[in-house]
Amino acid sequence: MIWREVFNELLEQGASNASGSMYVYARIVEILKTAIEDGRMKVGDRLPTNRELAAFLKVDRSTVARAYLELAQLGLIASQVGRGTFVSALAANAGPASNILPLPSGELNWPNRFSRYAEGLSSSINKLPQLASGDDYISFAGGIPSQDSYPSDDFQKIVLDLLGGGRGASMFDYSPFAGEPDLRQAVTAHLALRGIAVRDQELLILSGSQQGIDLVANLLINPGDHVLVEEPTYFWAISNFKARQAQLVGCALDDEGINLAAVEAHLIRYQPKFIYVMPNSQNPTGITMSLARRRGLLALARKYQTPILEDDFSGDLVYSGEPLPSLRTLAAEVAGGENIVIYQGTFSKALCPGIRLGWLVGPQEVIDRLSFAKRTSDLATNSMVQVILTEFLQKGLYQEHLNRVNRTYGQRRDAILAALAKEFKALPEVSWTVPTGGLFIWLTLPKGTSNRDLLEFAVAEKVVFSPGDLCFLESESSSLNYLRLCFIQNAEPQIAEGIKRLAQALTKYLAHLAEDRLANSHRQRRNEHVLI
Amino acid sequence: MIWREVFNELLEQGASNASGSMYVYARIVEILKTAIEDGRMKVGDRLPTNRELAAFLKVDRSTVARAYLELAQLGLIASQVGRGTFVSALAANAGPASNILPLPSGELNWPNRFSRYAEGLSSSINKLPQLASGDDYISFAGGIPSQDSYPSDDFQKIVLDLLGGGRGASMFDYSPFAGEPDLRQAVTAHLALRGIAVRDQELLILSGSQQGIDLVANLLINPGDHVLVEEPTYFWAISNFKARQAQLVGCALDDEGINLAAVEAHLIRYQPKFIYVMPNSQNPTGITMSLARRRGLLALARKYQTPILEDDFSGDLVYSGEPLPSLRTLAAEVAGGENIVIYQGTFSKALCPGIRLGWLVGPQEVIDRLSFAKRTSDLATNSMVQVILTEFLQKGLYQEHLNRVNRTYGQRRDAILAALAKEFKALPEVSWTVPTGGLFIWLTLPKGTSNRDLLEFAVAEKVVFSPGDLCFLESESSSLNYLRLCFIQNAEPQIAEGIKRLAQALTKYLAHLAEDRLANSHRQRRNEHVLI
Repeated sequence: MIWREVFNELLEQGASNASGSMYVYARIVEILKTAIEDGRMKVGDRLPTNRELAAFLKVDRSTVARAYLELAQLGLIASQVGRGTFVSALAANAGPASNILPLPSGELNWPNRFSRYAEGLSSSINKLPQLASGDDYISFAGGIPSQDSYPSDDFQKIVLDLLGGGRGASMFDYSPFAGEPDLRQAVTAHLALRGIAVRDQELLILSGSQQGIDLVANLLINPGDHVLVEEPTYFWAISNFKARQAQLVGCALDDEGINLAAVEAHLIRYQPKFIYVMPNSQNPTGITMSLARRRGLLALARKYQTPILEDDFSGDLVYSGEPLPSLRTLAAEVAGGENIVIYQGTFSKALCPGIRLGWLVGPQEVIDRLSFAKRTSDLATNSMVQVILTEFLQKGLYQEHLNRVNRTYGQRRDAILAALAKEFKALPEVSWTVPTGGLFIWLTLPKGTSNRDLLEFAVAEKVVFSPGDLCFLESESSSLNYLRLCFIQNAEPQIAEGIKRLAQALTKYLAHLAEDRLANSHRQRRNEHVLI
Repeated sequence: MIWREVFNELLEQGASNASGSMYVYARIVEILKTAIEDGRMKVGDRLPTNRELAAFLKVDRSTVARAYLELAQLGLIASQVGRGTFVSALAANAGPASNILPLPSGELNWPNRFSRYAEGLSSSINKLPQLASGDDYISFAGGIPSQDSYPSDDFQKIVLDLLGGGRGASMFDYSPFAGEPDLRQAVTAHLALRGIAVRDQELLILSGSQQGIDLVANLLINPGDHVLVEEPTYFWAISNFKARQAQLVGCALDDEGINLAAVEAHLIRYQPKFIYVMPNSQNPTGITMSLARRRGLLALARKYQTPILEDDFSGDLVYSGEPLPSLRTLAAEVAGGENIVIYQGTFSKALCPGIRLGWLVGPQEVIDRLSFAKRTSDLATNSMVQVILTEFLQKGLYQEHLNRVNRTYGQRRDAILAALAKEFKALPEVSWTVPTGGLFIWLTLPKGTSNRDLLEFAVAEKVVFSPGDLCFLESESSSLNYLRLCFIQNAEPQIAEGIKRLAQALTKYLAHLAEDRLANSHRQRRNEHVLI
């Protein structure tokens, strides 16, 4: 048998006496590789069994097994059921791999390989709280519409019509990369109703408007670039921009929206790549930017030649007052002036988030690039929901839906404001914003409290909210002073009950704090006593 | 009237004699702003009409109109229908914007603002050809399955059941960010059938597998990093990696897949961040990597501690021979060894692309990061299709579907091979790959020809294909020698007819080239004659 000759070499060196089985195993692999390479062992040659070789070399069978496993993984040997182990036909083709001794432990150090983008995610990744949930909890967290408003019946009818009528193929094919032509038209018509004029080359359908943030960030941000944002602002925009190592610069908000003095000062000082704002019912504050601020912001953007990303995530939800013109609309009052604004919207808040459909509007040269960037990112947007939404819009059902939910959500807004006024009457240090649309109310806690601590008391009362510090750029103690309450996802009785529970939680938390302070001051006095 | 006092200053300076109307327009804006700021003009004060002020200052009415337009955009003045123009109530709130003189022309130079990512897209953005299309064209371009195989009836039944049974809400809500739990289970069960063992923390549901490429690129690539790829390879992977300023290093393929000598040489020389491969029915070549190469590639990856992104886009489509184990499966033969592989798959090729559903499998520490990166990119995957697909998988319909399409597509593969053998018999310089699965055949043209030129002749014959140069890393003339043919999207008679047309197109193109050469050689001879 050839193998005896081959392994005689090892036997002569005294395999069993070599420095440990680790060495022997590696020698077995090496010797067989060499024998195959120099032709002493040929494809199809039989190898000894584990038992045979172990006995021959006077080593442990597990040592032989380990060597054989690695040779098999190198493609040099293979077992045939019922016949034995042979030099593999693949050995001839294995190329330089046959020269490789695999590392004994193949554990890759992944974190060492992560990009700066991955590192940039780190600052956000651990901030999200795990929120308790369950049927008996009332949740003001999240930013989702009410389940009872979902268009199940309409969608069911549309799907039936489409599939039954043999028009279903477009639901399964790739859609054109910039979106289904009919949906593009329907979105354009909807935006026209809102006073936003869009030429066809200026529109891109998105897989949800978070994708708009992602694409615009890709298009504009180099590591180290500054981006000007409202503060507080949308958590997933912060996370996205930070992942690209953008330097975020925050501008405070008041009742009329972004502080223009801060905007101008930061534009001069940082020359940011762009300005990201949510003029309508801002996330998280619910504040709507006044007309004066809109015009002022545009004038600043023009003066300092800095584009604006206008995120109109909830522009279709308006409960009181006249809707204000979008920045894009105002910018267009100067011919060509709209080119300074990239506008984005979504069906997620006014209709439902599960369909992941949004849109971007911007100058053609920007949309052209973003379209290609989108293809490299997800090739195309889901066709099925595009085809369904097209029908939904064309039939006027979206407008009917908006009329319905704006009535319902407006009543819920009124209900939460009434509940807050009632339940927090005894806590005058608590204040909140009064939104004219959208989803959110921003609540300010008494000084020296922490939303994260309150959350524990709230969970005990079976009510949850979104901690406001998520929406600040840095983790400072002042950012712990806020909560975001989503008021559209619960019916009015749940809202009243939920706010009652929240007030109870705060009352208990404040009592606990007072006890702590009392205990501390006792302790302190006692300590002082000791010291004296 | 106050305004006369205000503008007297300008009049005294001799407005009409100032250096051009440009100056006057700016002075009007400035003077009014100052008057509003220092309180000489108050909110509600009336301004002169265009005509009045133009007459007063002895300037052109268009100069006044221009000044008023900019003041209005600054929010400082406003018109009231039928009453006139007044200092705006908003002026009091306009803040520092009132100190701004807008630039006369607000055209933003967008390309100056684009990121290096956007620049990185440029090398790919103009390569895609505009392909002719129409009912009378036969297309071998694209990479899409056959419309007649789309699961319309099954989907219709599932949607009816879900919506009719009141189980529709999950179709409209955000899905959990890592995917619907039931879909995750169903995908895990499907992968187990393919021999791929997946723990729950190792799985991420994607909005199509292009998103997997995008996320992994984000996670691993810093500008300037090297990435090792097969060459030719998938166009949208090239585009994505290049947008991140990755340095792509290509390894040639032969009938057994990637050349391992090239892999090892490049691993040593470039220390790439990762290796991107498609072991099954590669795009564009249709080549399936042999078992020996798979083992060899893994051994190299281990030796040089370089992770692999295994794109198994068409692993469910196998027509002949036994399916080979995935790299992930082979890597798992060493305990923990699978951690060197990120594996991705999709429903786009075997089922339909419009649903945009895929999955990533990898080490938990990688999947954790990718999950968060996915949220910053698109928040969540479309819920509607996830819920539908879950039912489709749970009912065993996907497996039935695979049995059906693997039979059909296998016959189409045989049909295109037969047609190629028949139609290109007279053109022995033409060769092609013989795929055992997937979608693509890779055809090599005679030396000195160009696929782009052939495409013009092909369009005239009403047949189209994908030019192979798209799949090479650089635009070299040798890359023009190839076509990619997708054979699954047409029925057998169309395939036969399409290949006949393609052969005719090539014959005409070669005849045209020969004429050209003849004419050139006549010209040359004549020129030689002249020279002599």
